[in-house]
Amino acid sequence: MREVSQPATEAIRLVEVLRAMADPVRLEIVQRLAVTGEEPCNAIGGDLDVHQTTLSHHYRVLREAGVTWTTVQGRTRLVRLRRDDLDAVFPGLLDSVLNGARHLGAAARG
Amino acid sequence: MREVSQPATEAIRLVEVLRAMADPVRLEIVQRLAVTGEEPCNAIGGDLDVHQTTLSHHYRVLREAGVTWTTVQGRTRLVRLRRDDLDAVFPGLLDSVLNGARHLGAAARG
Repeated sequence: MREVSQPATEAIRLVEVLRAMADPVRLEIVQRLAVTGEEPCNAIGGDLDVHQTTLSHHYRVLREAGVTWTTVQGRTRLVRLRRDDLDAVFPGLLDSVLNGARHLGAAARG
Repeated sequence: MREVSQPATEAIRLVEVLRAMADPVRLEIVQRLAVTGEEPCNAIGGDLDVHQTTLSHHYRVLREAGVTWTTVQGRTRLVRLRRDDLDAVFPGLLDSVLNGARHLGAAARG
């Protein structure tokens, strides 16, 4: 099992985490991962109206910021939220963002 | 007393708030305002190594995102954090960001 380059927990930077989540598509991916747990990255976001290249860019931003952890298994990339790591370095941040995003989603659906 | 254009509480958007805080200078301004309360904008950030034009841009991003509230009094612009508004729409978000930033600041100072 090979792993792609991604920051150690102590190297996760607040500004990068905020920047990674400050995008509607990436926020949607984060919300989905919060519900589903680990997923092949082609299983999340494939239905979004975003080109595959753009989606790959979004996955990379999330991974390099330390928001997600990617594990390569053969030709599949499994992606999950780094919930424990984020909670350790920025307690409450991920939950407040997820709650805020859920609130918005509910409002948008009426 | 005149007020500049800034979003009503219900128009504050999560992505914009995250984006506004996802910058080292703006995060520093937010941290300072959390300590000082309302300040003339030339009193905060004037010592940062940032051009005045850039600083004005940062203030505008924070204001337009709904992170800060600006009140114009004559030639002075008073700036404050919209803590109550942010806590109302995204509970816990501002505190978790401020805690995370404080933690980083302490680490940087050794």
